[in-house]
Amino acid sequence: GILERLDAGEVVIGDGGFVFALEKRGYVKAGPWTPEAAAEHPEAVRQLHREFLRAGSNVMQTFTFYASDDKLENRGHTQRFTGQQINEAACDLAREVASEGDALVAGGVSQTPSYLSCKSEDDVKTIFKKQIDVFVQKDVDFLIAEYFEHVEEAEWAVQVLKTTGKPVAATLCIGPEGDLNGVSPGDCAVRLVKAGAQIVGINCHFDPETCVKTVKMMKEGVEKAGLKAHYMSQPLAYHTPDCNRQGFIDLPEFPFSLEPRILTRWDMQKYAREAYNAGIRYIGGCCGFEPYHIRALAEELAPERGFLPAGSEKHGTWGSGLDMHTKPWVRARARRDYWEKLKPASGRPFCPSMSVPDGWGITKGHADLMQQKEATSQDQLKPLFDRADKGL
Amino acid sequence: GILERLDAGEVVIGDGGFVFALEKRGYVKAGPWTPEAAAEHPEAVRQLHREFLRAGSNVMQTFTFYASDDKLENRGHTQRFTGQQINEAACDLAREVASEGDALVAGGVSQTPSYLSCKSEDDVKTIFKKQIDVFVQKDVDFLIAEYFEHVEEAEWAVQVLKTTGKPVAATLCIGPEGDLNGVSPGDCAVRLVKAGAQIVGINCHFDPETCVKTVKMMKEGVEKAGLKAHYMSQPLAYHTPDCNRQGFIDLPEFPFSLEPRILTRWDMQKYAREAYNAGIRYIGGCCGFEPYHIRALAEELAPERGFLPAGSEKHGTWGSGLDMHTKPWVRARARRDYWEKLKPASGRPFCPSMSVPDGWGITKGHADLMQQKEATSQDQLKPLFDRADKGL
Amino acid sequence: GILERLDAGEVVIGDGGFVFALEKRGYVKAGPWTPEAAAEHPEAVRQLHREFLRAGSNVMQTFTFYASDDKLENRGHTQRFTGQQINEAACDLAREVASEGDALVAGGVSQTPSYLSCKSEDDVKTIFKKQIDVFVQKDVDFLIAEYFEHVEEAEWAVQVLKTTGKPVAATLCIGPEGDLNGVSPGDCAVRLVKAGAQIVGINCHFDPETCVKTVKMMKEGVEKAGLKAHYMSQPLAYHTPDCNRQGFIDLPEFPFSLEPRILTRWDMQKYAREAYNAGIRYIGGCCGFEPYHIRALAEELAPERGFLPAGSEKHGTWGSGLDMHTKPWVRARARRDYWEKLKPASGRPFCPSMSVPDGWGITKGHADLMQQKEATSQDQLKPLFDRADKGL
Amino acid sequence: GILERLDAGEVVIGDGGFVFALEKRGYVKAGPWTPEAAAEHPEAVRQLHREFLRAGSNVMQTFTFYASDDKLENRGHTQRFTGQQINEAACDLAREVASEGDALVAGGVSQTPSYLSCKSEDDVKTIFKKQIDVFVQKDVDFLIAEYFEHVEEAEWAVQVLKTTGKPVAATLCIGPEGDLNGVSPGDCAVRLVKAGAQIVGINCHFDPETCVKTVKMMKEGVEKAGLKAHYMSQPLAYHTPDCNRQGFIDLPEFPFSLEPRILTRWDMQKYAREAYNAGIRYIGGCCGFEPYHIRALAEELAPERGFLPAGSEKHGTWGSGLDMHTKPWVRARARRDYWEKLKPASGRPFCPSMSVPDGWGITKGHADLMQQKEATSQDQLKPLFDRADKGL
Repeated sequence: GILERLDAGEVVIGDGGFVFALEKRGYVKAGPWTPEAAAEHPEAVRQLHREFLRAGSNVMQTFTFYASDDKLENRGHTQRFTGQQINEAACDLAREVASEGDALVAGGVSQTPSYLSCKSEDDVKTIFKKQIDVFVQKDVDFLIAEYFEHVEEAEWAVQVLKTTGKPVAATLCIGPEGDLNGVSPGDCAVRLVKAGAQIVGINCHFDPETCVKTVKMMKEGVEKAGLKAHYMSQPLAYHTPDCNRQGFIDLPEFPFSLEPRILTRWDMQKYAREAYNAGIRYIGGCCGFEPYHIRALAEELAPERGFLPAGSEKHGTWGSGLDMHTKPWVRARARRDYWEKLKPASGRPFCPSMSVPDGWGITKGHADLMQQKEATSQDQLKPLFDRADKGL
Repeated sequence: GILERLDAGEVVIGDGGFVFALEKRGYVKAGPWTPEAAAEHPEAVRQLHREFLRAGSNVMQTFTFYASDDKLENRGHTQRFTGQQINEAACDLAREVASEGDALVAGGVSQTPSYLSCKSEDDVKTIFKKQIDVFVQKDVDFLIAEYFEHVEEAEWAVQVLKTTGKPVAATLCIGPEGDLNGVSPGDCAVRLVKAGAQIVGINCHFDPETCVKTVKMMKEGVEKAGLKAHYMSQPLAYHTPDCNRQGFIDLPEFPFSLEPRILTRWDMQKYAREAYNAGIRYIGGCCGFEPYHIRALAEELAPERGFLPAGSEKHGTWGSGLDMHTKPWVRARARRDYWEKLKPASGRPFCPSMSVPDGWGITKGHADLMQQKEATSQDQLKPLFDRADKGL
Repeated sequence: GILERLDAGEVVIGDGGFVFALEKRGYVKAGPWTPEAAAEHPEAVRQLHREFLRAGSNVMQTFTFYASDDKLENRGHTQRFTGQQINEAACDLAREVASEGDALVAGGVSQTPSYLSCKSEDDVKTIFKKQIDVFVQKDVDFLIAEYFEHVEEAEWAVQVLKTTGKPVAATLCIGPEGDLNGVSPGDCAVRLVKAGAQIVGINCHFDPETCVKTVKMMKEGVEKAGLKAHYMSQPLAYHTPDCNRQGFIDLPEFPFSLEPRILTRWDMQKYAREAYNAGIRYIGGCCGFEPYHIRALAEELAPERGFLPAGSEKHGTWGSGLDMHTKPWVRARARRDYWEKLKPASGRPFCPSMSVPDGWGITKGHADLMQQKEATSQDQLKPLFDRADKGL
Repeated sequence: GILERLDAGEVVIGDGGFVFALEKRGYVKAGPWTPEAAAEHPEAVRQLHREFLRAGSNVMQTFTFYASDDKLENRGHTQRFTGQQINEAACDLAREVASEGDALVAGGVSQTPSYLSCKSEDDVKTIFKKQIDVFVQKDVDFLIAEYFEHVEEAEWAVQVLKTTGKPVAATLCIGPEGDLNGVSPGDCAVRLVKAGAQIVGINCHFDPETCVKTVKMMKEGVEKAGLKAHYMSQPLAYHTPDCNRQGFIDLPEFPFSLEPRILTRWDMQKYAREAYNAGIRYIGGCCGFEPYHIRALAEELAPERGFLPAGSEKHGTWGSGLDMHTKPWVRARARRDYWEKLKPASGRPFCPSMSVPDGWGITKGHADLMQQKEATSQDQLKPLFDRADKGL
């Protein structure tokens, strides 16, 4: 089990984000970001699971992000599959691939439009309960409540997840400034632990450097409160030094022009080392992570774990495979020193290196954030376009 | 057939590069860059074929890059599969997926270590012949000689390919400065057409802007010579404004820190339009292309082709899917105008926007470029490291 | 007098930094940074005073930076003039030009090698006393203690300056993190006001944005303590978003490659407005400021001051002079909107946009910072070069 | 005389551009760019001459740029001084300062609105003649025809200058693409030599790298034509890798946001060496050059010239003066190796590194370029603003 591994001091390598990776492969639609592909295109989801397993992941997380019924019905997006079908298919795929290697299956839930639309605690918990029922029936190994911007909703999720008796991990998508109501990372972590989470941390919205920094603040908070927990981080694979409190969603490049920000494998090795040094033992990724990013984590921590991942069969550590390159000046790059020092160019001399984030200074409770089932109309979009243009 | 389509004025969408995409997925080793995965991990290769098909590709190119026997034996890289096994498996996979949609199968050969090591014309042609035999036996629809730095070797390849009676396309990996012996793009194209290629163009080594410019020069050369041909381009998905004659191989970021240079889908739409305007009708990609890049080509040229690719089921044209996003300021990005004007930031303020290429000013014939079968020794690497460090 | 003007709510425009401007003109040596030019090349100093006066400065600050006797003898730098001669000449030049317009003369003292070398309070105060004696004899209008990294030394200076009965301004060269002993800007300001300064603020070491932010923190501290003061800012004319606590000294570009960081006149107008909005009424500049930068401050605050500076005779507000340019597309730049939106390119695609500062984590009290009179020997430099190279 | 020096193989160091330097000091108005300050504020012009002399200049060029009568009357700019007064005052100042050191006086003429407005050869020559009369009367040492975009007008100028019997230098403000009518640099140079110029070269509009490259092309042209000449270069002190044929005028940053492009002193030493290696012996500067830039040229070529300039009294070669800096990590920068390798950051992470030039594809003969005496009206400006905004 996950807790046995963490209690024993093992490093657990997580997987990467499915929605972004599958969007690039043609199976997830940006905007709704829903995971119907688990039922619709299982071969694509299975293949991505396999690649992460091969890259060194110890956890196959069910591809059930935003698979709550209220989200699946959101904004005019019609579905060919019920929420239950999607959740079941995702569990089956995760289990199938986990069995091919040394991996656990984690059932995942995430934040809901119901909470953002100010529905009651009962209503929101009912949403979570429907997903949990599938996870229990499919007997996943543990549960993850992830991608919450408000610690209150995460607490509710943890409370529901705890009813299963399975281990519970909880991650927020916040940075050092805290959740969208201004609760500090330390206080957030204490509340999640008190709600019953055995593993707490951060996922998505910020780059590895920021996420590790925020998990450190969570750890300090938990320790100061005299509590105990394990820590996890699943950051973006995008550099985001210019983010505000809301993270990469507010960067003007989100979600279709983030390419120049993608981390290299060497950036990832640095992240893995820093996360490890910060006491984080569940180390994975989120949006932007491709299998080779996860492999870089596993390679950096190979001394601690005692082995390389299967995928390293096709990778020379620190570029050593280049000793077989045709040209001698490329063979001269077959070494750690070269790649660690390199400051990679963007090839984009007409572009800046940082952006000014959007974000209209509102959060849960504001009318602009009430979610609707109907498709957004042109009449609704027009004032948004105008407002954005004036802000530029 | 491919010629019927091109003769009819159709746009043919190519696929993207397999070695880079599969390297990130854990199935190809950077350095040797050989395609043994076709035999070793067919499910991964099949899935990538499917993603390109779904993205709109009309051609499934066999994953036989560098699958010549002399390359497979190169530099201490031991193989579990014979060249024949790899070539056969690649043909079967391409055909299997092509049959799932409207696609042709193209058998591909590429430049050889034998040529670089100054072997005779007969020796080099024998190498090509072995791959061709498999393509004939597996009855591919047409043949592509691609990724040649010296037009002479490409001519030899075309001559061998022509013996099959199948249509032949030939692409060089050169830029406006011409091949590594200084033959201009126009002259190169004329020689390839005279050797028997019906389709000529450029693949790899340079970004779309450079490739389109170079194909234009080829077209001018062919027309000036009173010849006729179809034109194709399969560029990198990396911005390379800072390349010298040898292309991205010589950029210090090659191959492990190219991330900041990756093109966005909007960059790709611009490429598709410029290629089309230049009279290129076989429009695809090479290293760095992911399925969503190919889809962007198919979406840009949907008016000309009359349909969207299957993968657009999961993509709102020009970001329109964002009208379903949770936050109103992200919904304000659901429009063409927004994405066309955006200058995406790198998130890397400590990095430059252009690099100075390596490249030691040598080409075929120089002793430093003689290839060997044995693994490169530390004694061989040490002087390369020293030379590179002094050059920095 | 200065206090009458500030008490009346007037905006006082300061001058720019003399050492950097005169270094570029060939009269100050970078490294020692001493002001012997006041005696040696009075025509150059007089001309710079005149240009600042013409640009709108209300204060002619004596060119007596680092003109303490202990600094003038520092590190093997031999002088043809005594400290007294330099201080006297500087007073005469300032007074001569001030009389040509509406300006006051301010005598200035700055931090001393004696303090850094841990000399006693009495020793340090004796150093200041020698400069003050000249200022009293030459009857300057008020006094400025500027460029202090440690608030303690600034307090000592203020105490000496107060003995003259003249108004005293005191500025530190610190940022939001406080002085080099970690005293916060708010606490620093309170200590300076209690020591007797009527005007407090920040000069040098950081860009305008950072300086205004820091003065705001000083103002909050002073107001929270129930005290009263006037506020001044004299920042760098260099963008320094990447500075650590020690400011631009620690940037690798200091002092000979700062050019790409130089503020435009439009950046300066933004600074003037932000300083004014923050309640700062003594608004000037320091290193990097050229006369046109000061003019930009005076032009931005012309509505508040009721007049344009003399130098605006040769400047069209917001680029309006371009309506006389030869080429119509340059005439199209004759407007505020154009210049405010422009993001100026560096023309340096091989350079980054931010640097990692040096700074060896030491301050007053550390042996490495003890100052010496003898020239630095090669034996002393060698270990510094080695240490720096390893740190790169 | 200038020819004796050049014939003897001496390096002649030119001065820097007066209009830009004096604009920053408050004595020249950007837009008209006229030199009335020679008569209006002689102390400012004299001081700048002195600084260049001290920095190592061997030539004091009269501050008579755009001092032709037709330009002085241009676009509603009213003058308190006649053209003759300005030209006379400029000659006197240049001679006065030249006498203080080892410098020659050069009288300068530049392109005219009359030519751009398609006036006749006679009309244009009459304009030049009026300036020349003053130069002859004041007995300058030689003449320079500079800043011509069309070689035809430069030829006319040279023909007029030749009538004086004094040595004549002629520089165009063009790049490798040639003059605005498309005449190549080589052909331009041949025409200027045939018209009678003994010294030919390039000034303004492009950075040193581009100018040296263009002068090389001129030299090749002259040598190929079997002619002889001396060569000179007086480039910008701004990096302009992104210019089109019209040079920095067309960069969106011209003229008020060029700061990030300013060359460092180390960039200048590189320029001096490259110019020298290209066979250029008259090496100076134009817009953007400050005295310390000229000093850098003189320091780089001190081995060839046999002495350092007077201004080096205040400058340690290659940063050696920093061995006297207070902080040891700054003393570690007192060496050539450090400054040569440094890639200076812009401190502007929100800005790009290159720009897209304006330029509406028109030149002499187009109605939009006809010059007028009356001030530009708002009615004339409005369509220019609109056109520019659409182009953005």
